[in-house]
Amino acid sequence: MRATVMRSSKLVVDTLPDPEPGPGEVLVKTLACGICGSDLHALKHADKLVEAAREGGMPFNMDPARDVVMGHEFCAEVLDFGPETQRALRPGARVVSMPLVFGMRGLHGVGYSNEYPGGYGELMLLSEMMLLPVPNGLSTEHAALTEPMAVGVHAVAKARLEPGDAALVVGCGPVGLAVVAALRLRGVEPIVAADFSATRRALAEGVGAHLVVDPKVEGAMDAMNRVAGARSTVIFECVGVPGLIHQIMRDAPREARLVVAGVCMEDDRIRPMLGINKELSVQFVLGYRPDEFADTLTAIAEGRIPVAPLVTGKVGVEGVAGAFRDLASPDAHAKVLVEPWRS
Amino acid sequence: MRATVMRSSKLVVDTLPDPEPGPGEVLVKTLACGICGSDLHALKHADKLVEAAREGGMPFNMDPARDVVMGHEFCAEVLDFGPETQRALRPGARVVSMPLVFGMRGLHGVGYSNEYPGGYGELMLLSEMMLLPVPNGLSTEHAALTEPMAVGVHAVAKARLEPGDAALVVGCGPVGLAVVAALRLRGVEPIVAADFSATRRALAEGVGAHLVVDPKVEGAMDAMNRVAGARSTVIFECVGVPGLIHQIMRDAPREARLVVAGVCMEDDRIRPMLGINKELSVQFVLGYRPDEFADTLTAIAEGRIPVAPLVTGKVGVEGVAGAFRDLASPDAHAKVLVEPWRS
Repeated sequence: MRATVMRSSKLVVDTLPDPEPGPGEVLVKTLACGICGSDLHALKHADKLVEAAREGGMPFNMDPARDVVMGHEFCAEVLDFGPETQRALRPGARVVSMPLVFGMRGLHGVGYSNEYPGGYGELMLLSEMMLLPVPNGLSTEHAALTEPMAVGVHAVAKARLEPGDAALVVGCGPVGLAVVAALRLRGVEPIVAADFSATRRALAEGVGAHLVVDPKVEGAMDAMNRVAGARSTVIFECVGVPGLIHQIMRDAPREARLVVAGVCMEDDRIRPMLGINKELSVQFVLGYRPDEFADTLTAIAEGRIPVAPLVTGKVGVEGVAGAFRDLASPDAHAKVLVEPWRS
Repeated sequence: MRATVMRSSKLVVDTLPDPEPGPGEVLVKTLACGICGSDLHALKHADKLVEAAREGGMPFNMDPARDVVMGHEFCAEVLDFGPETQRALRPGARVVSMPLVFGMRGLHGVGYSNEYPGGYGELMLLSEMMLLPVPNGLSTEHAALTEPMAVGVHAVAKARLEPGDAALVVGCGPVGLAVVAALRLRGVEPIVAADFSATRRALAEGVGAHLVVDPKVEGAMDAMNRVAGARSTVIFECVGVPGLIHQIMRDAPREARLVVAGVCMEDDRIRPMLGINKELSVQFVLGYRPDEFADTLTAIAEGRIPVAPLVTGKVGVEGVAGAFRDLASPDAHAKVLVEPWRS
């Protein structure tokens, strides 16, 4: 199969052997696969990612020195079944899945594994028990957004929102946009979203922000206080750069709750006294639960999460490296989908 | 009045003018006042304390360049009333109070103010509306422990405990001991408490820890995992030194909740990826609410918080400086009470 391969910290296009489904596994054709910010991180800092994941007790069986086909935000088509499968779905059925495979060789993250190629290649192996059929009428490209939007649904679920809470979303990349959409889905008001990029602010409005702020013009927290008044505030950090947690802790109102959804790979510096004096709380979040993933697919299918504005580009395997470069600039794109079957 | 005064970062004994009660204020005689770890901090780092409190939006009207009479953990006797007071209590009544005065000159922290002397002096001014009468049969020295024990009651309240949760208390100084006592009051089991000091470990057992650990012999988290198994874990950081939050985040199990009750005055370094991968939460806490303060007094009076083991020394104003030195060593004392009327 043709695939974009991460090899020696570079992206190259190559022809790899077609994968063969083992027990409980299904061979699928990748129809569309989103490029995730974590993949951009992984290309630059694969060693750090693996080290941090292992420290955190995550099952991360990836050796960055060997080939990896990334891509974990996919919609795919069932092609064939391995042994010991139920085969409730038919070949041709469209599916999404959490990017986890329980294979013969243990638990693997699809797209962060040397054994299980991700959606930047034409073919993948998925665990049959993880497959969710894509509802009729839901487009493939919107179904492929289930994974990134589930990240927002989960982050909002972990925020322990109460009626009347106001929300500030700092950073409107894919994670921030998913959080805005999930807040809107829950009926939170006001939702204030801050980003330096005009493109991203427009996208945030498109998925449900009530007020967008350019931090060059007005401080995000000032804008928040202006519209939220004395309400209890939940702040979602969706950037993931060192220094931002400190800055939010410094500016946050008393008893604010901070949800850290941005993935900061570096060490970071905080001032505990700021947290203590204001009794702040910090909830770190990652991923989603299976029920949240399934609920997200349903919410997208029912039009309750407006994903249409988010897909801003499509590429074949030859275009992935260029898309990675484009995605480094916040104004170029929200979500780029890889369609590995494109010539 | 005679008082131990913080003057130019030193403790000196001096005779100060007797304070006179303003509107809404009551003149009281200090019967006993505990020495708090924050006072030890304040003597060394008053500037930092004031700066951090101001950054945190706290009403902290203290100029460390001027005299301060510290002491905010007190039991006192009503002597006289200022104008505009209800006088429901009689002179001679014993009282405790949250160490806050709403005076003509704004909101002041008793014991962290140039205007309102704390319990290291013979006389104090308190707001009448804040006074709580000490129940008959409760000793003055135990009543004086209301304030530090309320800190534990509040920290545990902020931990959002659920049935079946296990608790680990890191550090068994006064804050850690108050947390252990408050956990026991709630019926939490097991309560594991860790401290390098054998004296403090014995005190932790005295106030309700089910298992005490010397981290030199067994890692606190290892001990916790050994007795708590797969239970959900709440970890109370009650030390307040740089590096400890990182260490707990590194060793904590998935989805552990960390409550930071230790007061770390310095900047600190964390690794966000550890929090992200394990979806940890960090709740910073400070002080207590008025209802928690009142409930703590009642719980002590009813014998539900065993405070007797905690008082390990008593001094007059001449002995405060020496007690500060002794308290730097963890084996010497738990709580030292100042009795300013002692000759």
